[in-house]
Amino acid sequence: MYGWRAKVGVILPSLNVTMEPELYKMAPEGVTFHFTRMFLSEGTKKGLEAMQKDVEPCAELLKTAEVDLILFGCTSGSLVGGVGWDTKIIAQIEDISKTKAITTSTAVVEVLKAFNFRKLTIGTPYIDEVNQLEKKFLEDSGFDVIDIVGLGYTTGAQLHEEDAEAAYNFARKLKLDGADCIFLSCTDFHSLDAIKRLEKDIGLPVVTSNSASMWSVLKHLEIEADLGQYGKIFG
Amino acid sequence: MYGWRAKVGVILPSLNVTMEPELYKMAPEGVTFHFTRMFLSEGTKKGLEAMQKDVEPCAELLKTAEVDLILFGCTSGSLVGGVGWDTKIIAQIEDISKTKAITTSTAVVEVLKAFNFRKLTIGTPYIDEVNQLEKKFLEDSGFDVIDIVGLGYTTGAQLHEEDAEAAYNFARKLKLDGADCIFLSCTDFHSLDAIKRLEKDIGLPVVTSNSASMWSVLKHLEIEADLGQYGKIFG
Amino acid sequence: MYGWRAKVGVILPSLNVTMEPELYKMAPEGVTFHFTRMFLSEGTKKGLEAMQKDVEPCAELLKTAEVDLILFGCTSGSLVGGVGWDTKIIAQIEDISKTKAITTSTAVVEVLKAFNFRKLTIGTPYIDEVNQLEKKFLEDSGFDVIDIVGLGYTTGAQLHEEDAEAAYNFARKLKLDGADCIFLSCTDFHSLDAIKRLEKDIGLPVVTSNSASMWSVLKHLEIEADLGQYGKIFG
Amino acid sequence: MYGWRAKVGVILPSLNVTMEPELYKMAPEGVTFHFTRMFLSEGTKKGLEAMQKDVEPCAELLKTAEVDLILFGCTSGSLVGGVGWDTKIIAQIEDISKTKAITTSTAVVEVLKAFNFRKLTIGTPYIDEVNQLEKKFLEDSGFDVIDIVGLGYTTGAQLHEEDAEAAYNFARKLKLDGADCIFLSCTDFHSLDAIKRLEKDIGLPVVTSNSASMWSVLKHLEIEADLGQYGKIFG
Amino acid sequence: MYGWRAKVGVILPSLNVTMEPELYKMAPEGVTFHFTRMFLSEGTKKGLEAMQKDVEPCAELLKTAEVDLILFGCTSGSLVGGVGWDTKIIAQIEDISKTKAITTSTAVVEVLKAFNFRKLTIGTPYIDEVNQLEKKFLEDSGFDVIDIVGLGYTTGAQLHEEDAEAAYNFARKLKLDGADCIFLSCTDFHSLDAIKRLEKDIGLPVVTSNSASMWSVLKHLEIEADLGQYGKIFG
Amino acid sequence: MYGWRAKVGVILPSLNVTMEPELYKMAPEGVTFHFTRMFLSEGTKKGLEAMQKDVEPCAELLKTAEVDLILFGCTSGSLVGGVGWDTKIIAQIEDISKTKAITTSTAVVEVLKAFNFRKLTIGTPYIDEVNQLEKKFLEDSGFDVIDIVGLGYTTGAQLHEEDAEAAYNFARKLKLDGADCIFLSCTDFHSLDAIKRLEKDIGLPVVTSNSASMWSVLKHLEIEADLGQYGKIFG
Amino acid sequence: MYGWRAKVGVILPSLNVTMEPELYKMAPEGVTFHFTRMFLSEGTKKGLEAMQKDVEPCAELLKTAEVDLILFGCTSGSLVGGVGWDTKIIAQIEDISKTKAITTSTAVVEVLKAFNFRKLTIGTPYIDEVNQLEKKFLEDSGFDVIDIVGLGYTTGAQLHEEDAEAAYNFARKLKLDGADCIFLSCTDFHSLDAIKRLEKDIGLPVVTSNSASMWSVLKHLEIEADLGQYGKIFG
Amino acid sequence: MYGWRAKVGVILPSLNVTMEPELYKMAPEGVTFHFTRMFLSEGTKKGLEAMQKDVEPCAELLKTAEVDLILFGCTSGSLVGGVGWDTKIIAQIEDISKTKAITTSTAVVEVLKAFNFRKLTIGTPYIDEVNQLEKKFLEDSGFDVIDIVGLGYTTGAQLHEEDAEAAYNFARKLKLDGADCIFLSCTDFHSLDAIKRLEKDIGLPVVTSNSASMWSVLKHLEIEADLGQYGKIFG
Repeated sequence: MYGWRAKVGVILPSLNVTMEPELYKMAPEGVTFHFTRMFLSEGTKKGLEAMQKDVEPCAELLKTAEVDLILFGCTSGSLVGGVGWDTKIIAQIEDISKTKAITTSTAVVEVLKAFNFRKLTIGTPYIDEVNQLEKKFLEDSGFDVIDIVGLGYTTGAQLHEEDAEAAYNFARKLKLDGADCIFLSCTDFHSLDAIKRLEKDIGLPVVTSNSASMWSVLKHLEIEADLGQYGKIFG
Repeated sequence: MYGWRAKVGVILPSLNVTMEPELYKMAPEGVTFHFTRMFLSEGTKKGLEAMQKDVEPCAELLKTAEVDLILFGCTSGSLVGGVGWDTKIIAQIEDISKTKAITTSTAVVEVLKAFNFRKLTIGTPYIDEVNQLEKKFLEDSGFDVIDIVGLGYTTGAQLHEEDAEAAYNFARKLKLDGADCIFLSCTDFHSLDAIKRLEKDIGLPVVTSNSASMWSVLKHLEIEADLGQYGKIFG
Repeated sequence: MYGWRAKVGVILPSLNVTMEPELYKMAPEGVTFHFTRMFLSEGTKKGLEAMQKDVEPCAELLKTAEVDLILFGCTSGSLVGGVGWDTKIIAQIEDISKTKAITTSTAVVEVLKAFNFRKLTIGTPYIDEVNQLEKKFLEDSGFDVIDIVGLGYTTGAQLHEEDAEAAYNFARKLKLDGADCIFLSCTDFHSLDAIKRLEKDIGLPVVTSNSASMWSVLKHLEIEADLGQYGKIFG
Repeated sequence: MYGWRAKVGVILPSLNVTMEPELYKMAPEGVTFHFTRMFLSEGTKKGLEAMQKDVEPCAELLKTAEVDLILFGCTSGSLVGGVGWDTKIIAQIEDISKTKAITTSTAVVEVLKAFNFRKLTIGTPYIDEVNQLEKKFLEDSGFDVIDIVGLGYTTGAQLHEEDAEAAYNFARKLKLDGADCIFLSCTDFHSLDAIKRLEKDIGLPVVTSNSASMWSVLKHLEIEADLGQYGKIFG
Repeated sequence: MYGWRAKVGVILPSLNVTMEPELYKMAPEGVTFHFTRMFLSEGTKKGLEAMQKDVEPCAELLKTAEVDLILFGCTSGSLVGGVGWDTKIIAQIEDISKTKAITTSTAVVEVLKAFNFRKLTIGTPYIDEVNQLEKKFLEDSGFDVIDIVGLGYTTGAQLHEEDAEAAYNFARKLKLDGADCIFLSCTDFHSLDAIKRLEKDIGLPVVTSNSASMWSVLKHLEIEADLGQYGKIFG
Repeated sequence: MYGWRAKVGVILPSLNVTMEPELYKMAPEGVTFHFTRMFLSEGTKKGLEAMQKDVEPCAELLKTAEVDLILFGCTSGSLVGGVGWDTKIIAQIEDISKTKAITTSTAVVEVLKAFNFRKLTIGTPYIDEVNQLEKKFLEDSGFDVIDIVGLGYTTGAQLHEEDAEAAYNFARKLKLDGADCIFLSCTDFHSLDAIKRLEKDIGLPVVTSNSASMWSVLKHLEIEADLGQYGKIFG
Repeated sequence: MYGWRAKVGVILPSLNVTMEPELYKMAPEGVTFHFTRMFLSEGTKKGLEAMQKDVEPCAELLKTAEVDLILFGCTSGSLVGGVGWDTKIIAQIEDISKTKAITTSTAVVEVLKAFNFRKLTIGTPYIDEVNQLEKKFLEDSGFDVIDIVGLGYTTGAQLHEEDAEAAYNFARKLKLDGADCIFLSCTDFHSLDAIKRLEKDIGLPVVTSNSASMWSVLKHLEIEADLGQYGKIFG
Repeated sequence: MYGWRAKVGVILPSLNVTMEPELYKMAPEGVTFHFTRMFLSEGTKKGLEAMQKDVEPCAELLKTAEVDLILFGCTSGSLVGGVGWDTKIIAQIEDISKTKAITTSTAVVEVLKAFNFRKLTIGTPYIDEVNQLEKKFLEDSGFDVIDIVGLGYTTGAQLHEEDAEAAYNFARKLKLDGADCIFLSCTDFHSLDAIKRLEKDIGLPVVTSNSASMWSVLKHLEIEADLGQYGKIFG
């Protein structure tokens, strides 16, 4: 029986090709993930905002799969409207599906608070417009953003050339200045496999959008898993 | 870089919770799968036919992920309209996405012909109405259906209680009568892990909807993989 | 030489098909188990009481195997007559066989007391009639039964459909309310493989009838074994 | 679910402590064994004959376990009355239990014929009286007994001191004289682990009562298993 | 004792950062590699020709290491002057060092002839100027160059961004048209780890400059090694 | 991509055949080493001094490989001119290559100070003339040299007969007299594989020229690696 | 090079067939054992005393093998003459061979004192005559012998039937009565493989003649080894 | 029980430190080796001849160990008197011990004939005087000695510095000239670990004195073992 411990629905941007393999790579025994997509062809403020109209149809679809939890799997897409945007999305999903929901942004805030990481240095693949939205969202959520650096990408073609080695080198150049942790944002950024090596070489905890999403999924489902290779947040 | 050998888009019925874990379990190194859903809440003729209207929007979504191939991942849904229904769906997907497409039914026919399996004994989770459609589709495609037995399920709740041990016992009771192979239909039927054991104990090749789908995906992508544990069709 | 550390005789209900594979799965090197059966076709109070008349013939049989210890391997069958029923059975076996004997009920009480687990939440496959007998027996033995939930089965056919995944899901729904541990009763209930996962996800120790039986067998034989995968009682 | 491929009932002599560990050592995935005992305190003609009166009650017990096959697990006990004694036992079990049955003697004959082993050299733990019965039974069944040597044991205490190293040395001294195979008789003789080494050093196939029983069980159940380490009959 | 089977000297272009890790990855037990560099800052005809003046000083250096064989480890650098350029370099090295020498170009010719690969499709990181030199050299050596495609790189910075996944995708796009094998040229091109996958997916043998160099080194030293994972030429 | 964490250039004496295999044996994932040679045919004071004139051309060569750090890999060669000789070499390399540089002598001093090893017992393959230079350099750097013993070698032929077993036996005979650690000098001395065994049997930390060089390389690059098998300095 | 850490000579009674395999089973990397024999055909006081005349010729033989230490490998043979008998034997060996020597008895005393085991319960294969000599020797050496039990063997034929399972069962029956440890005497008693299991089940340290001999050999040679599976004395 | 398949006595020259570790390295499960020594301090003709007087006392010692076979473990010592010398030694041992005996020379002849290796190239550690004796013995036994090369050693100190890497290099320099195999003579020559590598690199079978001794021991005992890593003679 697949998903005997839990089945997790995931709503993700249509261009994303990273979240599916990363969630399945981390999936604990007896936990399965089930996906459906919102239209997104460019990672701009406008594109991200437009995704919201697909949330409810997506929730309808996942409802028929009788999943135990639904994850809105996009960082910038769940914060593009500022603080409160994520909780609005959650409410929409829960209304339709009658199932507990979370978003990646909510997950990031949750995990950073759980570990009391207050001062953040952030690396993203985003353009500056999106970085500023993320900075504001995190500052308004009570964090101190020491630095935020983006690769300036908007298209899938740009994003999907990256690999974990490049993510490592990108992250090594971030300003640390007393940071409590490094946050590598974007569920479509191939950074999961760089976490362990970065934590060893830099000495700081590293959180990515997908590791934060998984951490929050497991916390809400009350499921324990051995995911230490994906960062200190998994102990 | 995820999907460096190939990225495969998959359009699946919304209630299906089996195809995602089974494709990721079989996924060769460097091949990733990306999903989106068509609405289906009941496995009846009517429900299956209604899915067709979601094909084009789904193709739109996967187009933005720049996948190398799109799989319509539902057996009964790609044959419900009889011979030609599958090729019509393929044409729709290819028109929208400008990407090569296949369906599970097409894949099943392809693999059975490639191995010259002509006489089939078939196990399904379907109700009789759907079994008769499948029987007709396969006979019209040139196969001899010795027997077709269904579990009589229409809902996800029924389907998702099954596991590989039950599938094994179900399949052991099928009539063989000179069959060339056993075909276990339905991409939402948990039968993949029963294949190897059944082939050993019964001595006939066993094909499931998901093993056939994977076989066809790899053939079209010209990718070799060591999937012998999933049946003789992977040699 | 088989059983060079110890040979253990086991008297079990005739319909039980779980205890033999579970004891052999846990068997430490050099310890063997040897079985004989009492008639039981239905798990009702009446059926359980009737088993008692088979105890002495079974003890006669195991005596010829020169075992080092005899286990009466049935939880409800060793408590159906209330406190004292188990010690009466033990006396019968020891009289006939001249060999130290224990019962599963006695083992359960022993292990719970050894770890000072006083408040219990209990899951069983039994009908309510049997649950009430078990509740009374444990309360009269000094425990506090917070909750006891049964699946309502009496026949082998019902019991033997269950597997460890189902046992996991069943146990996750038990009321915890300050319980010291979870007790999954019945030597014919497929729950052993769910213990470790449940302990991780719920955080409480989990004891099953077969893990308790094995714990007590090893304690009486003064044999140490690495059985940590079968629960915290094996530490 | 235990025994999902098959559940096998076994009726064995009460003093036997070898068959249970040897069957569980060889048990293929998904196959379980369930035991009950006939009274036997001494391996003499008289003792062996007396076991027959326990066959029917044992079949009654195993019937409630809903096993798929019943094995009468004693070589000398299933041939003590000469050719036909085994088929009479089988008929009794099948009448009561409504389940297919076999005996060890029948299994031995079956496997030897299947491999066309006609000339036998035999080692047993028996006294001469029993050896002569076995010799006659096999000769009357169409085999040529080149030599039969016994250790002269009647009690469990004698039998159970033996181990596989002793069985190896005992078997190395048998007369070969053109034998097709070596047969080590008795389901309570610790010889299974000596098979592979003997086959390598002597160059002849080696069959034991328990390897023959397992071979026949699997053949009747149509189950394939990788048991090559237990002798050439498992290919 | 390092290099107890053989010590191999290697003269390589100064910008090359691929040959050292690839040779050490393939190095058989007891074989060591020892390096020294010729100045090269740009992969142009002029740059490649200029390397020749460093050959003799490099040979002087390796002579003191008492190596058993010297490899001039650059494909284009050993063919830039046309047929005969490689043998001239070999003569220079042997004169100075009194040690057997080979070059990568010589090695490539040797291995292709040994396996009778006559029709070649070639992928390189070079600019067209260099590709034309390579094409001519191979045609003058008796091969048929079906196609040669270059990435157009001249600097280390360009070359060293490549990895095996990119090499795989680059090679999959080469024209096959009846080719006997694929040759991926350049000892500074990260292609070694793509060989096995390419051979499986395309079905043709794949030779790289470094696999050819290693093959020739081992042949001249009469050393056998299990390097099957680096291509069919290692059988 | 080779060397994605770091690329390290190494300038080594031409006769050295030990440093290349030892650095590659220890190389952490994603770190590569790139070599070029200075002329040295005899390990005498005169020979070692003469190497200095090759430093700048070597730095020119490694500059084109765009390495992240350059190691002058010779102990005696970096101290032959007394305290300050190493820093002069470093300055030369850094001037030419615009890249951070270290020498083995500097590395040795660094690691010994980092662990506060003040009293040293030293084993070398050198002649006495060189031992005296090393002793003076280390004493002038603030260490207490309890004993220094040399094998009296000057040629590669002598050095390269040694193996780790001989190094073990040589080191076991050194005077300990309150030493804080054992230092086995020379990057061309096959001693790396003896470290762990020596540390266990003698109980003191053991540092070799190559383990010290690697330690310092990793410290300057801020790279963590699991090199505990190469001595206590890697924790 | 065999024995590069140490070569150990062993003088053993001619009938002993246990010490050679047990020492080689425990031998640390780089330590070899070399044997020669003293005549002994019966384990009686007279036989044991007579061995002494073979000590000097044996030492002559081992001298030519240039071993680093000589072990007189017999417990009773090194204590048969009471306290002082062992040191006399040591003196003889050292005089002849000019090599450090120890005996098994000396080793036993050494290890028991090192761990402060004062109260001993002893199992031996000896006849009572020899047990009394051992008891006296140990009491005169300052130990308290709580119990000493012998199997009453004098010949090799008797001794060599024993195996580790029998040794386990024999040792489980010894009186404990506040003992600090169990000592299983005799270098020809197959008890080494029973140590770990006994220590776990009984909870006391177990020392055998061969484990004590090895412990003392390694202590005198200053060699560390991971022999924890042979008892707590190896930590 | 040690040596349950067989116990093998070995009579070896007192200075030999190679045969014991090499026989124990190859020893099949259940086969043990038991040693005693003949005086030999120098490998000269005179020394080898003098060993013969120790044969009978050694046989007396091993007789008490009740071994199944006795091996005289010295090549030159069993051929020093020419053809017939070995059979005389065998007769002496068998007379005294009443046990089957072989010598290394006999074993070498046996194995070479069994594989029909007629033309030999031979490497030894011996002085020329001994080489000539060996050459004559083998020629008189019907072989063609293409070449025999010795290291010129007589003492243990010389012999025991050698290791398998040196043996490899020594053997690579032997003249092949149509040889059927390479024979590396002397049971005290560390060559066993070089066999496999030599066979791969040279392509000829390699036999050493110890591999031949083991081959012959197993043949006479009718024991099969997986010793393929020690050369082609073990298939």
